Amino acid sequence: MIGVGVAGYGYWGPNLARAVAESGVAKVEMIADPSPEARKRAAPRHPAARMTGDIGEMLRDPQVDAVMIATPVQTHFELALAALRAGKHVLVEKPMTETVAQAVQLVDEAARRGLTLMVDHTFVYTPAIRKISQLLEDGELGDLYYYDSTRVNLGLFQRDVNVIWDLAVHDFAIMDHLLDQSPVAISACAAGFLAGSPENMAHVTVHYDGGTMANLNVNWLAPVKIRQTLIGGSRKMVVYDDMETSEKIKVYDRGASCNGDPYEHLVSYRLGDMHAPALSTKEALLTEVEEFVRAIDSRTAPLTDGEGGLRVVELLAAASLSTRQRGHPVDLVTRKVAS
Amino acid sequence: MIGVGVAGYGYWGPNLARAVAESGVAKVEMIADPSPEARKRAAPRHPAARMTGDIGEMLRDPQVDAVMIATPVQTHFELALAALRAGKHVLVEKPMTETVAQAVQLVDEAARRGLTLMVDHTFVYTPAIRKISQLLEDGELGDLYYYDSTRVNLGLFQRDVNVIWDLAVHDFAIMDHLLDQSPVAISACAAGFLAGSPENMAHVTVHYDGGTMANLNVNWLAPVKIRQTLIGGSRKMVVYDDMETSEKIKVYDRGASCNGDPYEHLVSYRLGDMHAPALSTKEALLTEVEEFVRAIDSRTAPLTDGEGGLRVVELLAAASLSTRQRGHPVDLVTRKVAS
Amino acid sequence: MIGVGVAGYGYWGPNLARAVAESGVAKVEMIADPSPEARKRAAPRHPAARMTGDIGEMLRDPQVDAVMIATPVQTHFELALAALRAGKHVLVEKPMTETVAQAVQLVDEAARRGLTLMVDHTFVYTPAIRKISQLLEDGELGDLYYYDSTRVNLGLFQRDVNVIWDLAVHDFAIMDHLLDQSPVAISACAAGFLAGSPENMAHVTVHYDGGTMANLNVNWLAPVKIRQTLIGGSRKMVVYDDMETSEKIKVYDRGASCNGDPYEHLVSYRLGDMHAPALSTKEALLTEVEEFVRAIDSRTAPLTDGEGGLRVVELLAAASLSTRQRGHPVDLVTRKVAS
Amino acid sequence: MIGVGVAGYGYWGPNLARAVAESGVAKVEMIADPSPEARKRAAPRHPAARMTGDIGEMLRDPQVDAVMIATPVQTHFELALAALRAGKHVLVEKPMTETVAQAVQLVDEAARRGLTLMVDHTFVYTPAIRKISQLLEDGELGDLYYYDSTRVNLGLFQRDVNVIWDLAVHDFAIMDHLLDQSPVAISACAAGFLAGSPENMAHVTVHYDGGTMANLNVNWLAPVKIRQTLIGGSRKMVVYDDMETSEKIKVYDRGASCNGDPYEHLVSYRLGDMHAPALSTKEALLTEVEEFVRAIDSRTAPLTDGEGGLRVVELLAAASLSTRQRGHPVDLVTRKVAS
Repeated sequence: MIGVGVAGYGYWGPNLARAVAESGVAKVEMIADPSPEARKRAAPRHPAARMTGDIGEMLRDPQVDAVMIATPVQTHFELALAALRAGKHVLVEKPMTETVAQAVQLVDEAARRGLTLMVDHTFVYTPAIRKISQLLEDGELGDLYYYDSTRVNLGLFQRDVNVIWDLAVHDFAIMDHLLDQSPVAISACAAGFLAGSPENMAHVTVHYDGGTMANLNVNWLAPVKIRQTLIGGSRKMVVYDDMETSEKIKVYDRGASCNGDPYEHLVSYRLGDMHAPALSTKEALLTEVEEFVRAIDSRTAPLTDGEGGLRVVELLAAASLSTRQRGHPVDLVTRKVAS
Repeated sequence: MIGVGVAGYGYWGPNLARAVAESGVAKVEMIADPSPEARKRAAPRHPAARMTGDIGEMLRDPQVDAVMIATPVQTHFELALAALRAGKHVLVEKPMTETVAQAVQLVDEAARRGLTLMVDHTFVYTPAIRKISQLLEDGELGDLYYYDSTRVNLGLFQRDVNVIWDLAVHDFAIMDHLLDQSPVAISACAAGFLAGSPENMAHVTVHYDGGTMANLNVNWLAPVKIRQTLIGGSRKMVVYDDMETSEKIKVYDRGASCNGDPYEHLVSYRLGDMHAPALSTKEALLTEVEEFVRAIDSRTAPLTDGEGGLRVVELLAAASLSTRQRGHPVDLVTRKVAS
Repeated sequence: MIGVGVAGYGYWGPNLARAVAESGVAKVEMIADPSPEARKRAAPRHPAARMTGDIGEMLRDPQVDAVMIATPVQTHFELALAALRAGKHVLVEKPMTETVAQAVQLVDEAARRGLTLMVDHTFVYTPAIRKISQLLEDGELGDLYYYDSTRVNLGLFQRDVNVIWDLAVHDFAIMDHLLDQSPVAISACAAGFLAGSPENMAHVTVHYDGGTMANLNVNWLAPVKIRQTLIGGSRKMVVYDDMETSEKIKVYDRGASCNGDPYEHLVSYRLGDMHAPALSTKEALLTEVEEFVRAIDSRTAPLTDGEGGLRVVELLAAASLSTRQRGHPVDLVTRKVAS
Repeated sequence: MIGVGVAGYGYWGPNLARAVAESGVAKVEMIADPSPEARKRAAPRHPAARMTGDIGEMLRDPQVDAVMIATPVQTHFELALAALRAGKHVLVEKPMTETVAQAVQLVDEAARRGLTLMVDHTFVYTPAIRKISQLLEDGELGDLYYYDSTRVNLGLFQRDVNVIWDLAVHDFAIMDHLLDQSPVAISACAAGFLAGSPENMAHVTVHYDGGTMANLNVNWLAPVKIRQTLIGGSRKMVVYDDMETSEKIKVYDRGASCNGDPYEHLVSYRLGDMHAPALSTKEALLTEVEEFVRAIDSRTAPLTDGEGGLRVVELLAAASLSTRQRGHPVDLVTRKVAS
């Protein structure tokens, strides 16, 4: 059984530790957090695990096969690199790193050492995204026209990252997983309405080489919480509403087609049934831990590997570049603002 | 009582004619449409009105004080100009013209002749927008942070104009009415997924000189119909859902503020009551006809005058320019794609 | 083509006349209403029909094959009887009559003369109820456990009938159509909160001989409008929400079953997919007019025949009896309050 | 600080123990459960509390001032009686007892000994019901016309009690708290669709001496989960939707009134604003523990005292009697089925 060390027992670390404990395929060997209070909270929940304030101790421990990093984002790179160099498999919280260069270095390091590097893009492991992924693979949706996501609510304003790095990162990870296409250009407009705070509202558009267009609307200062994604395909369309408790995914057999006659140009509409498939009730984090262990055991890439984490950081960095230019599109091949 | 001539009795003309007839402050003198079928439908509904296939006859008729133009958009300019030159007041369907130059010419012509030129931006006259307008004027919302609108559904694909000219035009008119600010830049991304059809999906961002940011999501190819606008103010925020039958407007006493300490940077959230004011049940078109008559009688500008129609056409033209450059922002002072 | 006379051109008569005119399978021969204003409204809409203030003239007219009665409920019996005696087929608005004896007499008269007697239970012809009916017939829902309907809103208070005769009548007609069972007992509690007004709120329970239980919640004094029916079957369950614009019917593959072991008694739950079938967009009244004509032409019973109308009046009368006894169940075989 | 013993650490006991621990006004002295597994779960969560398998030990312990009983309902009476006789204050889970006679005996015993007897009617302590209670007290709703509750979902089928004792008990407790009236009659129809299971569906009507009518719709076999209560007052009306996350309570300034003229009988409708007051986010159980301690300290009756618990059991028993008579109303003064 894989021995796991959890680095950071603040907001997210406890969830990772609990998921490992419940997974049955890995066990929590050690929990590292510099805060004595954090360790005090962790100890009774994981009586078999050792506590330490020194992450170096965890990296040197031979019982620890893999490290899960749930520390502030600015420490991700350093800790993940150290863990890889210590020969540990690594799962790192999203976003993987602060810069593209850091992400590239982690990917290289893991590849060179034959270690698993995985990013905690949790949404990819939710039953809803698993189902949408399957619908796409099965061809039920046809060609993907667009991915249109609204992710707004009141709070929580972050101190260090803006709303794109906090919320749009989820959509970048989901799209990276769902789309069999490469992004070619991105533009993003952002605004901050609280002086001294990072931007709290942004609209992002991504163009893909297959013609798909993605639009993200993220906002920390909205009166209501909305988590809704429209996915338009040539055959069917999906409404994914994460606030729904029972029918998160609705598949609509609806669409339009054109008769092709350039003079007549008649559009006909298809208004068929709607179908809400039952979703698994399995917790995403459990699926994710299993995938981490599977990847380590089989020495194959996990669903959300370091390469994917790198691609997500590339989008985040390019979006940031665009926002600083008031929405100028950034070419994702040349990584320059288009002129 | 003002005598009105209705030019065009296709899709929208019948609504205008009916509203005039029901208004009690104007009467339908004449209806002009080249199609005999259209005139045949119109005649029994307006027994006191004369029918004609020749719009010139209407423009020459001394009983006709004002002309309402509900013909295809490419004819708006020519007909409106002819009507003004014939000394008639003019109400023209949205969008006012196809080009900015045409709009400027109409505004100039009306001003020179002291005639009322009004644009049929119907949404401005709905009880919902009247109420939001009043909330803003009364300072209840505070400073306007953003206007964020989703206007998507399946169909109707237009032949001649794209989804921006068809749907975003409503938001441009609403924002022109609500905001006491001037737009400084606009960017728009659009895509068309039906070969041979105009673009059916677009995202538009407008920056205003007061700091407000507006985002529009318009789409003819969505699985469900959504008409939802979030309006964020420094004091309160509004959700305007036009699909709701009874509570179209919800005002939330919610927001966030920062304690200002640059080292602490603590954000506090306000989660107060929600209030859905009862709205008038008066039909927007009746209010609009009354406003048209009031403007003519008082020789003052109507709420949605030609200047406003011109500003909306400017935004439409600039948005089109941006879409052809994959979303490059267009500077609304220089009217050039920024580089 | 069947010649139709419409008796009563107040609230509902215009809808019937229009549906006949649009049906293409019948034509409006004559419209009778004692009010000159009503006839003045009717005339231009039905230029080929004759107007009369004397319903006797309509009943004597040889061009009139069938009469549709849309007059106040207290006149239904007299007019329908006269029409049948004049040899006309009859469609009468709901409720068919004020008393069971009257309903019996109409059914007998029609049977004796070989004429079609049909009741305007419009809901039975809606695409939603057509679809539910089909689901039941196809066995998709399994055995019917319950029918649970909420039909509440603010207004319109009726003067002469209480809320059961106004709103529950719809459910009685729908259940009469859907259920292949006979009601055996009914109990109803009602209350009126406006002095001098009929009861505006009622709860009705009907027991059927096949074990199905129906519950109706009707109310004219509710803050919001709800039109929702839950239909529970042994295989699947339906939520029918008539306020929904696009997905009125949702079929849930959900249920529970018991393992039968009397000591263990473990209940297992099935949480499968939800499916919202696309519904026809055909107007119910058109389907109803076609059914009326089909029944006349084929000399077979229409879907909502006089027998069904009689059964509905029986339930209404028994419910009234129960409300006067504060909800004592009424035995529908003996038609007496159980003791 | 009040020392609390928790009897029963199965489904609900852990919540009570946690609430006591978090309350700051009481502490968990002892937890009693015959199951070693239950005690093993409890121990690490309450390191300062003693564990015992013998409830008698708890009742003899001088540190234990009050006992919270969260055991199966058939043991409530015996344990509560023993605790009172041991001089302990008692909080007992709902329903208080299985019979009216048992409830009477507990109330008498507590009164004789001057001990606090409280029933865990948790809903009464929710922010939503606190707010509705306040609206009624402030006269904002006017006279209470009706209380109309729908409480349906799929599962959990109980083994020993039917759906009335499981779900309607909540509404009985809420009404007992909200209404300043006494119930005079109750009727209930119930049906069970799973062989060998208690009734899973019921409709209950309660008449109050002030004219208020209450209707409850409870069901374990519904396709969707609904928790909705309409409360009609002469001045305003409330929709309380417990499934809503942010606006559980909506207060509508709507109603109808009659002009009183017996010949005209014109009803006019009021369609005013809707208002959703912000609710406290305090957990109901914390408020409940505070109330328990306050009642003990001040020797005054708690909000949900034994008398209230008795009245709720009376309604449950009378409802059961009515269901066995197919809905015959039960007179709540004579406690007999009316004839």
